[in-house]
Amino acid sequence: MRQELFIKMVLDAWNVRLARMDKMLAELSDEQLQKEIAPGKNTGAYLLGHLAGINNRMLVLLEMGEELTPGLYETFVEKAEKEIIERPSVSQLRAEWTKINAELEKKFALMQPGAWFEKHTAVSQEDFAKEPHRNKLNLVINRTNHLDYHLGQLILLKQGAGAN
Amino acid sequence: MRQELFIKMVLDAWNVRLARMDKMLAELSDEQLQKEIAPGKNTGAYLLGHLAGINNRMLVLLEMGEELTPGLYETFVEKAEKEIIERPSVSQLRAEWTKINAELEKKFALMQPGAWFEKHTAVSQEDFAKEPHRNKLNLVINRTNHLDYHLGQLILLKQGAGAN
Repeated sequence: MRQELFIKMVLDAWNVRLARMDKMLAELSDEQLQKEIAPGKNTGAYLLGHLAGINNRMLVLLEMGEELTPGLYETFVEKAEKEIIERPSVSQLRAEWTKINAELEKKFALMQPGAWFEKHTAVSQEDFAKEPHRNKLNLVINRTNHLDYHLGQLILLKQGAGAN
Repeated sequence: MRQELFIKMVLDAWNVRLARMDKMLAELSDEQLQKEIAPGKNTGAYLLGHLAGINNRMLVLLEMGEELTPGLYETFVEKAEKEIIERPSVSQLRAEWTKINAELEKKFALMQPGAWFEKHTAVSQEDFAKEPHRNKLNLVINRTNHLDYHLGQLILLKQGAGAN
């Protein structure tokens, strides 16, 4: 019972931020997304690719299948923006974001509660035996924070908005 | 056992972001903090006051006592930056941040595991009966995300850093 309660707490927090990101994307034009969030910093389009790449890789880390679009992580997470030579268009990135999150949502719905407390694929059996908090649910906690971190940056692209 | 594990997952995530914020504050000068995170947006000093005000109010929401410094929430959370008439200096805000977090740490250490699953003071008994996920631990999950959101903005004040 309490186990189900804290799975809900974690997934609610995740879903709230995904919904905020979707709302942000609906409000920002492709032109706005192509702007830098602050002078000399990343563009909104890069951050969208970055977040799509992170979520795409979550499918693997959570043992929910293969990445839907190979290469996003390598382009938008492993590379800094100025190192990228060829990149998808903003509309392609928007489509990736939507597709990847639909897949995550589908897989999340199929998870048995106890499975959230199993290790994710980036931690070894040995480390997990010593550090059982490094489970799948914990990965979602950390990805939720990471998403909010970049939401705080993307909002700067909105005209006339404060920083909150 | 699983309850303790889950509390650790949530508090670890919180403590990691607090440590990142402390590191960021150590790396930014008062002058840097007085700058806007992006043209026309909030200053770093405002965000420091904002985060200190949020943490200060957590003491009340989690039934851990009174606010240490009344007024921070009213100044830095309820007011937008341009509405503030009188504000503490950056060095005062740094001291508030440190003092408030020391108090939170002390109180967190005294919490019984089961108490984290009790309601916080911003939710009514009636609502909590229907929505038991709105507990004290959930408040920490949300405050952790909020902290990361603003960390994503404060890093923009660092010279030469990317947006990540």
